[in-house]
Amino acid sequence: MSVEEAFSKLCLSEKPAQDATAVKSLVFKPKTAKTATPIPIIVVALQSTSTPSPLLAQATSLKDPRLARDELFQSFFKCDSAKKFTLAYIGNAESEFRLLVDNQLESLEDSTVLQLNESLFIKKSELTQFLSQFESNKQSVDFTQEVAKPAPKAKEATAVSNAALEDAKLIGITVDKALDFSGWYQQVLTKGEMLDYYDVSGCYILRPPSYSIWEQIQRWFDDKIKGLGVQNAYFPMFVSSRVLEREKDHIEGFAPEVAWVTKAGKSELEEPIAIRPTSETVMYPYYAKWIRSYRDLPLKLNQWNSVVRWEFKHPQPFLRTREFLWQEGHTAHLTVEDAKEEVLNILDFYAGVYEELLAVPVVKGKKTEKEKFAGGEFTTTCEGYIPQTGRGIQGATSHHLGQNFSKMFNVCVENPLGSEHPKLFVYQNSWGLSTRVIGVMVMIHSDNKGLVIPPRVSQYQAVVIPVGITKKTTDAERSNIHASAKALEDRLKKAGVRAFGDYNDNYTPGWKFSQYELKGVPVRIELGPKDIEKGQAIVVRRNDARKYTVQLDELETRIPEILEELQQDLYLRAKELFDTHRVIVEDWKDFVPNLNKKNVIISPWCGVMECEEDIKDSSAKKDDGEELEQDDKAPSMGAKSLCIPFEQPELKAGQKCVRCDRAAIEYCMFGRSY
Amino acid sequence: MSVEEAFSKLCLSEKPAQDATAVKSLVFKPKTAKTATPIPIIVVALQSTSTPSPLLAQATSLKDPRLARDELFQSFFKCDSAKKFTLAYIGNAESEFRLLVDNQLESLEDSTVLQLNESLFIKKSELTQFLSQFESNKQSVDFTQEVAKPAPKAKEATAVSNAALEDAKLIGITVDKALDFSGWYQQVLTKGEMLDYYDVSGCYILRPPSYSIWEQIQRWFDDKIKGLGVQNAYFPMFVSSRVLEREKDHIEGFAPEVAWVTKAGKSELEEPIAIRPTSETVMYPYYAKWIRSYRDLPLKLNQWNSVVRWEFKHPQPFLRTREFLWQEGHTAHLTVEDAKEEVLNILDFYAGVYEELLAVPVVKGKKTEKEKFAGGEFTTTCEGYIPQTGRGIQGATSHHLGQNFSKMFNVCVENPLGSEHPKLFVYQNSWGLSTRVIGVMVMIHSDNKGLVIPPRVSQYQAVVIPVGITKKTTDAERSNIHASAKALEDRLKKAGVRAFGDYNDNYTPGWKFSQYELKGVPVRIELGPKDIEKGQAIVVRRNDARKYTVQLDELETRIPEILEELQQDLYLRAKELFDTHRVIVEDWKDFVPNLNKKNVIISPWCGVMECEEDIKDSSAKKDDGEELEQDDKAPSMGAKSLCIPFEQPELKAGQKCVRCDRAAIEYCMFGRSY
Repeated sequence: MSVEEAFSKLCLSEKPAQDATAVKSLVFKPKTAKTATPIPIIVVALQSTSTPSPLLAQATSLKDPRLARDELFQSFFKCDSAKKFTLAYIGNAESEFRLLVDNQLESLEDSTVLQLNESLFIKKSELTQFLSQFESNKQSVDFTQEVAKPAPKAKEATAVSNAALEDAKLIGITVDKALDFSGWYQQVLTKGEMLDYYDVSGCYILRPPSYSIWEQIQRWFDDKIKGLGVQNAYFPMFVSSRVLEREKDHIEGFAPEVAWVTKAGKSELEEPIAIRPTSETVMYPYYAKWIRSYRDLPLKLNQWNSVVRWEFKHPQPFLRTREFLWQEGHTAHLTVEDAKEEVLNILDFYAGVYEELLAVPVVKGKKTEKEKFAGGEFTTTCEGYIPQTGRGIQGATSHHLGQNFSKMFNVCVENPLGSEHPKLFVYQNSWGLSTRVIGVMVMIHSDNKGLVIPPRVSQYQAVVIPVGITKKTTDAERSNIHASAKALEDRLKKAGVRAFGDYNDNYTPGWKFSQYELKGVPVRIELGPKDIEKGQAIVVRRNDARKYTVQLDELETRIPEILEELQQDLYLRAKELFDTHRVIVEDWKDFVPNLNKKNVIISPWCGVMECEEDIKDSSAKKDDGEELEQDDKAPSMGAKSLCIPFEQPELKAGQKCVRCDRAAIEYCMFGRSY
Repeated sequence: MSVEEAFSKLCLSEKPAQDATAVKSLVFKPKTAKTATPIPIIVVALQSTSTPSPLLAQATSLKDPRLARDELFQSFFKCDSAKKFTLAYIGNAESEFRLLVDNQLESLEDSTVLQLNESLFIKKSELTQFLSQFESNKQSVDFTQEVAKPAPKAKEATAVSNAALEDAKLIGITVDKALDFSGWYQQVLTKGEMLDYYDVSGCYILRPPSYSIWEQIQRWFDDKIKGLGVQNAYFPMFVSSRVLEREKDHIEGFAPEVAWVTKAGKSELEEPIAIRPTSETVMYPYYAKWIRSYRDLPLKLNQWNSVVRWEFKHPQPFLRTREFLWQEGHTAHLTVEDAKEEVLNILDFYAGVYEELLAVPVVKGKKTEKEKFAGGEFTTTCEGYIPQTGRGIQGATSHHLGQNFSKMFNVCVENPLGSEHPKLFVYQNSWGLSTRVIGVMVMIHSDNKGLVIPPRVSQYQAVVIPVGITKKTTDAERSNIHASAKALEDRLKKAGVRAFGDYNDNYTPGWKFSQYELKGVPVRIELGPKDIEKGQAIVVRRNDARKYTVQLDELETRIPEILEELQQDLYLRAKELFDTHRVIVEDWKDFVPNLNKKNVIISPWCGVMECEEDIKDSSAKKDDGEELEQDDKAPSMGAKSLCIPFEQPELKAGQKCVRCDRAAIEYCMFGRSY
């Protein structure tokens, strides 16, 4: 079903008798740098509302928006021309956009009929609901305000009320993963109850189904690092500007995103205090204090905390959020070998979180100099891949900091050879894994029925549902079925399966099936009167609806087996997709076409930073800063280097760089990315 | 040893040959409300530095400081007169004071000799060390600054450098718990490596020995609440002012302590955003959204997070900190009975954390209207007692919010009786337990040798130390002892005891004994050649040095038994102290004298808020706002109501309130408190 068809179903089937309120939808294009993808601004407003460009600029923080030309409609919305554009086409957007909604329109009664063009009429409630799928792109704007006045408060209020409407009316996923990936992603998260949008932009609520996944990851990873001798601690979330700014390269990397506390109660603070974007500079002054002798080494601390990076880019649940949960490990070692060994141990654990827990394949490697952690020596990473968008995604990073921070913070010890030898600066690592992992997992496994969650991390692994109860079923029969189902549930729990039952008679089994498919429970177990007779139960896998008949006396062994097979199958399927979309490209002419086929690319490369920048630039959509798009074949963003994979294809003798004339020194993985 | 004697030991024994730098120590008294305890300002500065009153006021945020009269020296420092005052007397201070140190003095070389009065000379390094025990009272001041300029950055730098000095020079506790409780508390925490001071005032670093206690508490409590059907979640740390201020009484309680983010990177935010002081208003708009039907009830969420309350009162590690870790549970119920039952269940768990894990006795009860949670219906609490100060301490609180918040945030459901009946507003609870518990535990059990940590929560429960190695010991014998000790350690670990061994030959057993006493490891296990011969080990309890000879073949049963006995003994000793210092007082004339004997008091009471305020006022030290103290017998603060204990003595017929002429309606527990 095309987006137009889907949208027209929301509209009234014929011109209403009553008067309709005219609504306009306009698209603006802000002034954009050559190499950057433009971010269109879609304005939905009452026909009578004036929407001046400076106000749009102010509301979006984008530069100089002008009415977009047909080219943008074609490339961005797959819509022939500005004239043909309707709101339906928002569904075709594949990269970032903004959606500004007139707050006068929002304040209309739900029953108001709106006229969108000559033939499209829609009830205001339906429009609200349609727009609510773009909640994270959307902001409510008071167009009556004067430019340069602070933005309207209404912006924050709507997050709650619109989402409430959405939940109240729609149960299942209404957006196709293949057609509108970002709309689908939002729905699958919110309707699956993993997450909710919050009224402070860029912040999200982790509801129990996602937080419990985080708890599983915490337990697994915490055991692993404690096995390496790491201990948990907690450092304050605040850091003084003086300390924050001590390491120059490091702070340059973070400064634009630092949130500052300047006021407490009614008092202005003497000095603004930062909220940690990461804790290197929070911790290392104390490492300098605590580490006196080489016997104090290694010092290995970790904390589970939240950090704040006030990004102004488009936020995305789990992937780019202003506050996020993570762990950050910070260790100090006497020798560089010891430190480097740990960097790789930790990277293996990170790959383990993805591959063993979340059933997500990753490629391990090293970041280029351009992409490494600010202030560190080198960064190792595991990189994932999102098939629908063909984009790579950074999974988690483990950094070797060398002696850079230890020299800056004076973290040193007496030389074990004796005090006549110079003091030794310690070698440091830092490493972090965040709740981003959950977003990657959802993007990869979930589908149009809702969430698919790998059994090892799922809050619940099995739901037991009584079936086969009809009008003819007697009360005694019904209680027998319920009792048998409950007994089955109890046996599973005893066997260590995270099971629960749904014995509510007010809902049909079919309704329940949909519910738990939406929520991603790995298997459902159906038990009806005939099953009880035969001493069996029907088990259905969430990911592919595969059915098993399981003998009740084999329950305790079979269910864990089925769950484990499901876990493996999820991984193998995802791995096959990643493996077949990771292609070796040696000639530049094949580079962009392969990107456009949603591949990530492994290419021989010269290792020169300028060449890396050129690759990104040359694989991006061109924009001359005006409203004209060139008709090249490179949609949207350019390809960044994702990593230099540890597993390297062999370089041929005399192999040139994929982009320039220099000799290649290694293979590097490139891709469009998150 | 008197404080003067102790201090004189740090000083030079005779007048130095070289020139000494003159240093003055002055005491100022700020203008103080009648009912409040004055907070003296001690200024330590170069004789040549001018220390004007407005600058002192600015540095301390205290009002109008003037040179104190002899009365203050007598009551506060137990020093006859201003003339006789030396820094030694700081050790006699029993309540809050400020210590301002001239940063020009601090920048002198460590070897500089200072002259404190006609006869007292001290090396600058010794003075620094002496003052470092008052780290949390202390601030470094640039007296050359102009008033109203922001305070000096040096303030923050010193926290690290001074503490570093301290650690470098002193190993054991140098302050007597009985003589200088707050100095002792700081030392025991920092030297025991539980915590370190941080360069943002009021924030502290939780090092692994304290964080691991928090982890034990988390695991225990988390299991308990999950048993009640509570699920964990995570809500953002930010809250918009509009939402924060929705519930009037509630925000009034928190507004003066809210930290505000107003800037991100270089951009001013459109609206300031608060950091949560607690999450009622963060969460409840979403409860309103998620709760649609009574089938959605109860909704029981908890989060483990940090909150920020930017108190301007004197901070104290664990007890009063600007950021602290806690859990906050927020539940919504269909019926008031269900809600109230949970409030008490949770309170029992809180009492369990104290009594079963931390070996700290508490009294359960209800807060008075005056002391209850802002915006709630009633607050239940468990109250502890600190013997050294005779002060009560609030342990953890579990609040029933009634329908107050649900009406404010519109959290309601369809009436189960049918839609023709009015909607029902849900009944809510919130409950929280913070890292404060660790501070209470330390204050109660620890001693002049350092920390004493109850085995159930201690990071390590047993340390194995090889002994009896002398110069005559052969290498083979030594390795045999080490190997036997290691084998013993391994057996303990296998038996589930959190054991470790210290096999470092560079330190004597005696040095190690002191180290692990300082750190509070519950038992040490000594193993020497004779023990090995006899098939035994010597086990020594940290709390009372009690020795056991344990047969090696009984290790796996005896060590856990000894640990469990230790746990019980700690509890019983603390309980006896609490029980004997909780006295019933019926006549007002006995009230203050009993407070002064370091008791908390259970008195018949009329239940009237004005009377409660009068009790506090009348039991406080009087101060007319000028510099004269009345010579009454009530030192320091007044007695607050701590709780109305659930366990009530029987009221006699016609029993009057302890303070006023009204009839008593119940017994209430009063005390000076934290």
